[in-house]
Amino acid sequence: MRLDLSVDVAELTAAIVDIESVSGNEKALADAVEEALRALPHLTVVRDGDSVVARTDLGRAERVILAGHLDTVPLNGNLPSRVEGDRLYGCGTSDMKSGVAVQLKLAHGLAAPSRDVTYVFYDCEEIEAARNGLKRLVETRPELLAGDFAVLMEPTGGLIEGGCQGTVRVEVTARGERAHSARAWMGVNAIHGAGEILERLRAYTPARPVVDGLEYHEGLNAVFVRGGVAGNVIPDECVVTVNYRYAPDKSEEQAVAYLREFFDGFEVEVTDASSGARPGLDAPAARAFVAATGAEVRAKLGWTDVARFDALGVPAVNYGPGEPTLAHTRDEHVEIPLIGEAERRLRAWLG
Amino acid sequence: MRLDLSVDVAELTAAIVDIESVSGNEKALADAVEEALRALPHLTVVRDGDSVVARTDLGRAERVILAGHLDTVPLNGNLPSRVEGDRLYGCGTSDMKSGVAVQLKLAHGLAAPSRDVTYVFYDCEEIEAARNGLKRLVETRPELLAGDFAVLMEPTGGLIEGGCQGTVRVEVTARGERAHSARAWMGVNAIHGAGEILERLRAYTPARPVVDGLEYHEGLNAVFVRGGVAGNVIPDECVVTVNYRYAPDKSEEQAVAYLREFFDGFEVEVTDASSGARPGLDAPAARAFVAATGAEVRAKLGWTDVARFDALGVPAVNYGPGEPTLAHTRDEHVEIPLIGEAERRLRAWLG
Repeated sequence: MRLDLSVDVAELTAAIVDIESVSGNEKALADAVEEALRALPHLTVVRDGDSVVARTDLGRAERVILAGHLDTVPLNGNLPSRVEGDRLYGCGTSDMKSGVAVQLKLAHGLAAPSRDVTYVFYDCEEIEAARNGLKRLVETRPELLAGDFAVLMEPTGGLIEGGCQGTVRVEVTARGERAHSARAWMGVNAIHGAGEILERLRAYTPARPVVDGLEYHEGLNAVFVRGGVAGNVIPDECVVTVNYRYAPDKSEEQAVAYLREFFDGFEVEVTDASSGARPGLDAPAARAFVAATGAEVRAKLGWTDVARFDALGVPAVNYGPGEPTLAHTRDEHVEIPLIGEAERRLRAWLG
Repeated sequence: MRLDLSVDVAELTAAIVDIESVSGNEKALADAVEEALRALPHLTVVRDGDSVVARTDLGRAERVILAGHLDTVPLNGNLPSRVEGDRLYGCGTSDMKSGVAVQLKLAHGLAAPSRDVTYVFYDCEEIEAARNGLKRLVETRPELLAGDFAVLMEPTGGLIEGGCQGTVRVEVTARGERAHSARAWMGVNAIHGAGEILERLRAYTPARPVVDGLEYHEGLNAVFVRGGVAGNVIPDECVVTVNYRYAPDKSEEQAVAYLREFFDGFEVEVTDASSGARPGLDAPAARAFVAATGAEVRAKLGWTDVARFDALGVPAVNYGPGEPTLAHTRDEHVEIPLIGEAERRLRAWLG
């Protein structure tokens, strides 16, 4: 399969969507992207697994990164793509092959951008983090990801979503002592003890820190609870799994320390943690990006791969033509005019 | 296998213990009991499944019932029985073949008791209630169980344990609304909502009603809790399973009504209920029994089959030579002198 990068961005999006690339099956699309980019003399292309990185090397004062993932969630009877009016329907149209098409159009058209550009196309974003292609590049080829600012082309409906919040999951355990439930006072009920954990959660007021000018909105929530031995036994253990979403003014260590203090008196075990990312909108490249796109800027509350750039010291935002609420749905589609608009705005920034 | 009812009660206990009768496998023992009882001209014997009922019919002013189950929990390397000093070891020695041996000795020895006696030997007490032999007799042959007072020969260490508490299990459900945990305020956290259920349970003070002169001790406890959808989703349901152990001054309906009021504002679904039994110690036959045994009397807090007699209008107590804390253990044994003592005391009552 060959990609013709000279066609219009909507047509290119449809061509990419029609190369099925459910996570783990990105090879055909990565091959096509690699081949199309190698034909462009102003780019240096590196292939790593099913990720492709292409860079200009013009000695510009700044380097920016445009990144997008090649994979999609599993098909849901929504391929091949189809056009209806102003909309392109199909798996990956919003999340995020329309963004990938914009990257490819810019890579093709901008032989001499105002800033050096690194185009990153990576695999396995939609599945477990251990297989994430950007994670692999961060760990094994960090020099390919060096830069002053990054744009991750996840669907944002044309808004700029800055940084992302961090997330920690902890298991908070209340302990007791078993006894027959007909003689409950011989034991200590751990589920009743966990009532104190839930009381603290109910009393929690979400912090709304402003970071680099964007207001975040934290959250501290029980997402699982389990406890019980048998219908006639006073339970000796109750575990509440708590998810803390915290603003990027805190490190992972600070977030965990906050939780240990919050649940003082209970066992607290961290099961899962991903640090957040500052929006970094005070960097010159970022200011120019906001000015050029003219898009509304707001804080990103969910966690995204921008945090991987932040971990490398590269401020990053989410910006893409896809519609986030349609991601992962059978009815996934993208508004065709928004794809062209994203291409024009990024071209204005980099042209 | 033949049982010789003329031997001493400890020897008879060992003989019964050595006829293995794990629940569902009582046939050999029921056959032996039936055959031995049919040889006694003063008894009318009825066989029902693997239960055996034998009755005197002397036209006495009162009729009392001595009941015991023939089955045991699964073996645990503890057969055949063995004597060590004053103890008889083996599966079922305490729970409750020593009690069954006392029944058989009385059935054999008391051709003309002071009260008419119904001896009940039943199957499948140690497993799910649906297969319980006494339950079956209550439902299909209630006339066989008519009487003024019943003694269930469960292990009590020689104490009289009067009546039993009732038990109800309910599922109390808190509901919410799902949302992504990065935007928790878009949903309603059902696990946090269940905190109110646990708060009420923690504030509960157990009632200790006195019924027919015995003090009971109620209990209201969470025995299970479950809730949660995914690690990044605000949960929309949390279910707390609550076990209420209530004194026999309340009916099952009253207990359920109490729970519905206690958990007002939440869904309450009854999953399991067994009503209690009043000790009925004011009945003349009961008073004579207490006087004859001279044993300490206390309330039974756990649920036992005495409740099945109560449901027929027959007051009932637990009284047996076995040691309750040894029931269902590998080390199960019975103090041999206590078996003889139980026999003597019941003989004094009925002789």
